[in-house]
Amino acid sequence: MAPPFRKAALFAKPRTEANRPGLVAAAASILQVLERRGVEPMVEEGTREALGLENLPGHDTARIGAHADLAVVLGGDGTMLGIARELVAYDVPLIGVHYGRLGFMTDIALDGMPEMLDRMLGGEFETERRTVLEAEVVRSGSVLQHGHALNDVVVSHGVAGGMVEFTVRIDGDDIYNQRADGIILATPTGSTAYALSAHGPILHPSLAGLVLVPVAPHTLSNRPICLPDSAEIEIELTEVRDASAHFDMQTFSRLAEGDIVRARRGARTVRLLHPPGYNYFATLRRKLHWNVMSSVERGR
Amino acid sequence: MAPPFRKAALFAKPRTEANRPGLVAAAASILQVLERRGVEPMVEEGTREALGLENLPGHDTARIGAHADLAVVLGGDGTMLGIARELVAYDVPLIGVHYGRLGFMTDIALDGMPEMLDRMLGGEFETERRTVLEAEVVRSGSVLQHGHALNDVVVSHGVAGGMVEFTVRIDGDDIYNQRADGIILATPTGSTAYALSAHGPILHPSLAGLVLVPVAPHTLSNRPICLPDSAEIEIELTEVRDASAHFDMQTFSRLAEGDIVRARRGARTVRLLHPPGYNYFATLRRKLHWNVMSSVERGR
Amino acid sequence: MAPPFRKAALFAKPRTEANRPGLVAAAASILQVLERRGVEPMVEEGTREALGLENLPGHDTARIGAHADLAVVLGGDGTMLGIARELVAYDVPLIGVHYGRLGFMTDIALDGMPEMLDRMLGGEFETERRTVLEAEVVRSGSVLQHGHALNDVVVSHGVAGGMVEFTVRIDGDDIYNQRADGIILATPTGSTAYALSAHGPILHPSLAGLVLVPVAPHTLSNRPICLPDSAEIEIELTEVRDASAHFDMQTFSRLAEGDIVRARRGARTVRLLHPPGYNYFATLRRKLHWNVMSSVERGR
Amino acid sequence: MAPPFRKAALFAKPRTEANRPGLVAAAASILQVLERRGVEPMVEEGTREALGLENLPGHDTARIGAHADLAVVLGGDGTMLGIARELVAYDVPLIGVHYGRLGFMTDIALDGMPEMLDRMLGGEFETERRTVLEAEVVRSGSVLQHGHALNDVVVSHGVAGGMVEFTVRIDGDDIYNQRADGIILATPTGSTAYALSAHGPILHPSLAGLVLVPVAPHTLSNRPICLPDSAEIEIELTEVRDASAHFDMQTFSRLAEGDIVRARRGARTVRLLHPPGYNYFATLRRKLHWNVMSSVERGR
Repeated sequence: MAPPFRKAALFAKPRTEANRPGLVAAAASILQVLERRGVEPMVEEGTREALGLENLPGHDTARIGAHADLAVVLGGDGTMLGIARELVAYDVPLIGVHYGRLGFMTDIALDGMPEMLDRMLGGEFETERRTVLEAEVVRSGSVLQHGHALNDVVVSHGVAGGMVEFTVRIDGDDIYNQRADGIILATPTGSTAYALSAHGPILHPSLAGLVLVPVAPHTLSNRPICLPDSAEIEIELTEVRDASAHFDMQTFSRLAEGDIVRARRGARTVRLLHPPGYNYFATLRRKLHWNVMSSVERGR
Repeated sequence: MAPPFRKAALFAKPRTEANRPGLVAAAASILQVLERRGVEPMVEEGTREALGLENLPGHDTARIGAHADLAVVLGGDGTMLGIARELVAYDVPLIGVHYGRLGFMTDIALDGMPEMLDRMLGGEFETERRTVLEAEVVRSGSVLQHGHALNDVVVSHGVAGGMVEFTVRIDGDDIYNQRADGIILATPTGSTAYALSAHGPILHPSLAGLVLVPVAPHTLSNRPICLPDSAEIEIELTEVRDASAHFDMQTFSRLAEGDIVRARRGARTVRLLHPPGYNYFATLRRKLHWNVMSSVERGR
Repeated sequence: MAPPFRKAALFAKPRTEANRPGLVAAAASILQVLERRGVEPMVEEGTREALGLENLPGHDTARIGAHADLAVVLGGDGTMLGIARELVAYDVPLIGVHYGRLGFMTDIALDGMPEMLDRMLGGEFETERRTVLEAEVVRSGSVLQHGHALNDVVVSHGVAGGMVEFTVRIDGDDIYNQRADGIILATPTGSTAYALSAHGPILHPSLAGLVLVPVAPHTLSNRPICLPDSAEIEIELTEVRDASAHFDMQTFSRLAEGDIVRARRGARTVRLLHPPGYNYFATLRRKLHWNVMSSVERGR
Repeated sequence: MAPPFRKAALFAKPRTEANRPGLVAAAASILQVLERRGVEPMVEEGTREALGLENLPGHDTARIGAHADLAVVLGGDGTMLGIARELVAYDVPLIGVHYGRLGFMTDIALDGMPEMLDRMLGGEFETERRTVLEAEVVRSGSVLQHGHALNDVVVSHGVAGGMVEFTVRIDGDDIYNQRADGIILATPTGSTAYALSAHGPILHPSLAGLVLVPVAPHTLSNRPICLPDSAEIEIELTEVRDASAHFDMQTFSRLAEGDIVRARRGARTVRLLHPPGYNYFATLRRKLHWNVMSSVERGR
């Protein structure tokens, strides 16, 4: 039987100078596993430079997208998010090795990583498809910004203004007008990120849904709304002093009155490869300290 | 072309003696519209008695289920809920005429009702399918109670105990243990009922999802979870002083330690017929006073 | 007996050209009542210009503060807030006439206003003292901005950054570090403004307390904290991309890493004069639609 | 100088047979410290029996209240709560040694306890006064139940009914009518117990306030309200199927329509003695895992 993977891209981003040496060691360890398994490594050019892997050629995203059949990401969920977005057009599956804390997507620990990665390269893994949003900012009929978001599309106030005012439209119907700090349209993946801190619900990744979460809405009866992911959502800015649209909180555009932020489920999904036996709720439980913490004690 | 409806059941429940006369008049008006349209009325036996419609035969639910191709319900959402549950096995579509406040499901006002009902009988309506839960309470392997819920399946503490302790299991996997006042498993229909008051999100009726909402959970990071409606959910009571399981808050069983409340999407759905031009969000907006109320004003 | 008021300032701010004529008429009506009661009017210079009251002299805030023993404010809560802050050093009591919706502070309706104002000038009123915050932004030991806030002191992210990271210190003790969209320190007056939309509690104006409300905090167990108003609160910015400090959302400073926003109860309070029979909760009930709205209906 | 304490009561309650031996050992250790310090022990009679301390005389609460000038409680917050309520009339200060997890009130760990207790007996401690509620259930003008609560006075639905309907009155004024699962009136001490799980704020113990927290209120704009602790609060049951009133969730009365649950700050407070250097927020931080847990990660 043919091995499942032939070429695997490697991505890593040191956040600080201090964690560079650790990342270098971890990257070396990943490269060894790839070699042992006969998988050709494709080191991403930024990673090559950042980690000083000068004995290996560097590759840009387009090349990786065209040739790699796997991407191993070393870092946190933020790094994973950025790379997943860059690769979304190419349908390359991703494996996330967390450097630091366990992430929702980067769920392989450094400790024991070589063995686990080896097993996964051998075909033992769980595949999970994650919804991606495709979104654009439209001004007077022209697209100002277009992009993808794995977590969320966010409209948010800026430094000068305490709030934004907007109309939410779903499949062309006006749903409500709202004054708020902002509004978050999150995928199931994003439901455990910013949206969760803004009192949104958790959406299981296999739910074909999206969630709209207002941030500090003036109308106290305004609540998060879960929609089928076939919906097209528009947020039209009706009063703006200083606001912006964010895709995964990684890129942003300044918004003006009348601008429309429009989003829908993208045609492609992101494929995450998880260790065998992966359970979404086990990660959730660990990340949210559900069984550890039982802080409230009633008088009994 | 054949008329869409041949036999229409009529249900009405006066809540107080004071609103009986109004219901009698409204029922008479509905019966006139049915007659004009050539639709044979089937007055439900309890309704016949309660409204003193002695000149018409009364029918029980089984007979209505077998013969009616429409049910007109006069009352509030609570009445609608009970009748929808009784008819769930028969797939009879329902029209709700609200007596009193606009309901989420009873969305036809008395004012203008004859004209609207006439149009709907003529075929002008929007059909909406609502998910129904099928649930049971299991003790030591035996089913104690089995039933359906259009809104929610609820586990709740009783008068003596401040909380219940339970394990939530999804498709056989343990998700978390929790101490709380209780827990609500709601359909999209139920998401705007009890679950909403317990800080749950709103689920659009076309979302193929369910939502688990803990009530006053001890673990502060515990949040509502939206699941695909293909999931089977179990709530196992691990510590109980005094607790009960409720289906649509209309029937209940007392629970003991070790009892399991198990629920899944039922095989059947409830069909609601809405006035032409019906929009779910318009009802939501009116019920939740979204555009009227803008209570919070910041200092600008 | 001497009349309670001798000189009354008049403040009004048209928000749009469209509401100018209405404000002019209302101002004229207020001036008539003052004249009838023998109270000398002191029209604020901006108000004089905005409303075209050229037959009367205009006065600046300092002069008004020194001589007026009453200020009548015509507008919304936002206008009231700004004027209360300007006059805080002078201890001039304020009467608020709302132009548009009922406000929390501007609680006299135009309809019936002349009669009500006349009674109040005659001595029939309820006095309520509201806590004022005194706050400053400190950078490297120097005060960048100093001011007062009747509602709140807010630290908030700006357009480029999705969050701020800060340490909260109370009376010199570190309380917690947090990543969030921002944090609100509100007085009881401010507890029904921005803080309420960010899930803070309502503080009764007679409570000697303040409330700290994080906006979208990353730590899910972080909750609003009510403190005695003798506390000194510091918010030190530990990680900032783009953030600002706001006093009543009316003035702001851009913040840098290491900046400290420090606040405490000011030495002075604001005196609001309410109509006889005033009840804080009656206003709250009307503003929050408590008894009108009963949106959630359970299945009974 | 006279030693600060002459007679110290000892209270301990094994929750399970399994933790009895540990409690016996800890109690012995406490008795040794008392002896070394020349403090006469007064073992509570239930404690004497439960721990088999037959060589020492047992004392009832009245006797302890009359003679002891200190009470050492070994157990959890629930045990502490019960004993504090029993002793409230006598103004005996309490020291809490937690057996199991750190509590909000039982803040001395077993590990290092003898040394710490010794220091505290020597006069090194921080005194904190905690507000106590005095409450009663009134039916047709007669008091059905009267008692104290250190945490909260709660009105709650029972097993048969999904909700209660009540009017909240403050100092004789009707504040609102509400349908809800129940309502909690909490002291600052209780604000970190049941009220916190029902989305209430945290009240610092030195705040002279109380907080009213509705549980799952139907009116979505209903929010927790903080009141000065001079307020008298009444909750009148206007519609009841099955409800109860609880004082510290330890005693309860069944309620009927028209019953009034009335509460106010009691004349006495509870004095807690904390280790030197005690900081309320340090306990809060540890109990709520504030700095450990940073579960939400945005895309940066």
